[in-house]
Amino acid sequence: MKKEIFAKRTIEAAQAGIADAFAASNNTELISFAGGFPDAQLFPNDEMGESFRQAFTENSLNVLQYHDNRGYAKLRQILAKRLTADGTNTSADDIILTQGAQQAIDLVARMLINPGDGLVVEAPTYFGALGAFDAYDPTYYEIPMDADGMNMHALQKVLMAHSVKMIYTIPDFQNPTGAVMSLAKRQELIRLANQYDVVVLEDSPYRWLRFSGKQLPTLRSLDTEDRVISLGSFSKILAPGLRLGWATGGQKWIDAIATLKNGADLESPFITMVAVANYLSNNDLDAHLATLRKIYASKKDAMVAALQENLPNGFTVNNPQGGFFVWLQAPAGVDMGQIMKADITPNEGVAYIPSQNLYPSKTVCNAARLNFTGEDIPTIQKGIARLSKALQKYAPVVPAAALS
Amino acid sequence: MKKEIFAKRTIEAAQAGIADAFAASNNTELISFAGGFPDAQLFPNDEMGESFRQAFTENSLNVLQYHDNRGYAKLRQILAKRLTADGTNTSADDIILTQGAQQAIDLVARMLINPGDGLVVEAPTYFGALGAFDAYDPTYYEIPMDADGMNMHALQKVLMAHSVKMIYTIPDFQNPTGAVMSLAKRQELIRLANQYDVVVLEDSPYRWLRFSGKQLPTLRSLDTEDRVISLGSFSKILAPGLRLGWATGGQKWIDAIATLKNGADLESPFITMVAVANYLSNNDLDAHLATLRKIYASKKDAMVAALQENLPNGFTVNNPQGGFFVWLQAPAGVDMGQIMKADITPNEGVAYIPSQNLYPSKTVCNAARLNFTGEDIPTIQKGIARLSKALQKYAPVVPAAALS
Repeated sequence: MKKEIFAKRTIEAAQAGIADAFAASNNTELISFAGGFPDAQLFPNDEMGESFRQAFTENSLNVLQYHDNRGYAKLRQILAKRLTADGTNTSADDIILTQGAQQAIDLVARMLINPGDGLVVEAPTYFGALGAFDAYDPTYYEIPMDADGMNMHALQKVLMAHSVKMIYTIPDFQNPTGAVMSLAKRQELIRLANQYDVVVLEDSPYRWLRFSGKQLPTLRSLDTEDRVISLGSFSKILAPGLRLGWATGGQKWIDAIATLKNGADLESPFITMVAVANYLSNNDLDAHLATLRKIYASKKDAMVAALQENLPNGFTVNNPQGGFFVWLQAPAGVDMGQIMKADITPNEGVAYIPSQNLYPSKTVCNAARLNFTGEDIPTIQKGIARLSKALQKYAPVVPAAALS
Repeated sequence: MKKEIFAKRTIEAAQAGIADAFAASNNTELISFAGGFPDAQLFPNDEMGESFRQAFTENSLNVLQYHDNRGYAKLRQILAKRLTADGTNTSADDIILTQGAQQAIDLVARMLINPGDGLVVEAPTYFGALGAFDAYDPTYYEIPMDADGMNMHALQKVLMAHSVKMIYTIPDFQNPTGAVMSLAKRQELIRLANQYDVVVLEDSPYRWLRFSGKQLPTLRSLDTEDRVISLGSFSKILAPGLRLGWATGGQKWIDAIATLKNGADLESPFITMVAVANYLSNNDLDAHLATLRKIYASKKDAMVAALQENLPNGFTVNNPQGGFFVWLQAPAGVDMGQIMKADITPNEGVAYIPSQNLYPSKTVCNAARLNFTGEDIPTIQKGIARLSKALQKYAPVVPAAALS
C-alpha cells in the first residue's frame, strides 16, 4: 500500500500495547497475573456438556437455525428473575444477550457515540472497554478513583465544564482496582446523571463474586429516568468460553442495540443460549457461586498476604472484597510497564497489566493490575515471591534519617 | 432524555427499515422469501450434536476457557487446506475465525474506515454489510450491477474522481442479484485496485453452492499485492446457528483484525470452533455440499419456473447458477417496498426484501430479492402464485397498439 490505509483507531489500538502483555503469556513457564482468567478447575464441564447435548435433542428448538437476535427467550426469562431477586426489577424484554459483556460495551458505544462525543471513564479502567470505545472516536474524560469508587467532585467538575454523553463505570469490584462504589456515591452518580442528562453504562461482571461485606444496590435499581444500561456476563460465574453476556435497560435502548447487533454479527449462537438455559434449569447456580466465592476468596487472601509480606518499601497493595483483581501501587517514578517488559517478564517469568494501559491518556505508570483467580495458590505464592524480589531493585532508596 | 442522545448511525439504522421486513416474518401464516435462511431439514443436527459432545470429552482442550482470539488452530488448518484446494493458497496463519462473516465485515470496516473515507459497494448489495459499514461513517459510492458483476466502467470513473479506501464485492452468486462476476471483470477489478491503491473486501458465503457452470478463481487468488481480504462462512454450508465465519488475508490484515476483535467481543466461542473441527474431521463435507447443491438447485428451478409462468407483463426474474437468491425486476414506477407493506404481506402473506433497502442511497424501488432456500417446494409454489397474482394489479397497462 502506498497510502496510510489503516483507520486512526486501528493505529491507536496497535499502540495500546495490550497485545504485547498477552503475547508474553504464550511462554508456558510464565506465571501470568495479566489476564482475567477464571480458574478452569471450577468450570462445570460435565454439566455444561450435558446441557449442550440436551440442546441438540430437543428438536423442536432447531438450535442450528437463525433466531431472534435478542437471544433465547427462556434464558432471558431465567435471567430476568435472577436480576430481579438481586434487587433490580427486570423483565425478559429488558434484556439482550450478547457475545460476552464485551460486545455489549461495543454496541452501547456504537449506539451513542458520535465522533468527538464526551465519554467519562474511571481512571484507571477496563482496557477492553477502551478497545471498544476507541472504535467510535469519543473525547475521553478521566475521573480518578478513590477507595470507594469514582471521585464525585472530579465528576461534577467535568459534567459542569463539558458536554458528556455517557459515563462508563464498574461499580462492583472495579476492574482494575477492585474498589466498590459506596452507596452515597451511587446515589450521587445518579443525581448527577439526571442533572446533566447523561447515560450511565454500568458494567458489573463481578457483582456475584463478593467474598465479604454487604451487597449494594445496582445503579440501574437506583435509576428513575431510564438512563442506566447495565451489563453482566456468564464469563466469570460460569465460563468465558461460552462468550455470553447481557445488556439490560429500557425498551428504547434494547431496541436500538438489537438493530445495531444486526450489523455487528446478526445474533449470538442460539446453541450456547439454549445450553446455558438448560444448565440453569438443571443445576444450582447459587451453590456454584458459593464455591467460586470460597475458592477465589482464599486465592485473593493468599495473594494479598504474600504481597504484604514480601513487597519492598514504598509498594502497597489493596485488599478487595470480591472480584478478580488486586491493585499494586508502586512509588512515584517506577514505570511498571517498562520494568515488566525489560526485566520482570523475561527474567522472572511473571506478567501483569501495567497501569499505563488502563488510562486512555496512558499517563499513570506506577501501578499494576494483578489477577488472583487464574493460577493456583502455590503458583500465586511462587509468582508473588519472584515479583517482590524483582521489585526490590526498584524500591526508592530510603534516606538514612527516615530509618532512625 | 432532553437532548438527542442516539448516535447518527443509530438513527439511520432505525430508518433503514430492515427490521420492518423481518418483523413481518413473526406471522406464522407468512410465506417468507425475505431472510437468507438455509433449509433446516438439511442441517447435520445429529452429527453436530456428536461433535459438540466430543468437544467436551477431550478435556485437554479446556473448551470453556479463554483461548487465542484468532480461533482454534486445528480448525484454521483444516480450513486453510480447503481454501487452498479451491485455488486460493492459504495458511492457517492467514485466517481469523469470526462470529459469522458478518462480524468479519464489521471488523474490516473498523480496521480501515475513518469517518468520510470512500467505500465502493455494488448497487444493490447485501444490506447487512451496509448495517456494519454505517457504524464507521463512510462515504458510499454505488456501482451498478451488470448480469456479469459490477460495472467496471462505472467503477473506474469513481476511482478516477474520488479517493476510495475499499471496494466491497460479493463476486459469487451476489447477494441480492445472484450474479457471478466474470473472470475478465475479476482481473479488471484487481488491476484497478492496484492502480488506485484500494483494498478489496471479497465476501463469498455462497461460493461452494454452485448448481451449474464453472467455478471462477477468487479475487484473493488473483491478488498479487496483498490487497484482497476474503471472507467465508459456515452459515450457509453447515448451519447459521453456529455463528462461525472467517476472514483470510495477509499478516498485516489478520493481525490488525485480531487486535480490533479484542474490543468487539474478545474472541469467538472456542466450543463451537472445536465442534466444527470435529465435524469436519469425522464427516464428508463435500458429500454434504453435493446434497445441498442438488436440493437448492431444485428449489431455485421451482421458484424461477413459477415466476416465469405467473409473473405479469413487465416483471422479469433472473436465473442464477447458485447461491440463495433470485432477483425480481418490476416495471419502472412500481414501488416493491410500498406495495409489500400495504398489500402483499398483509393481504397475501408473502414477504421479500424490497430493493430500496439494498442501496445505501435508497434510490431504487422497483426490484426485490427473493430467497429460495428457506421454504419447501410446495410452499415456494404457493407463495409465488400468491405473489404473482397480487402483482397483476401493479403491472403497467399495455397500450392496445402493443397487443396487435
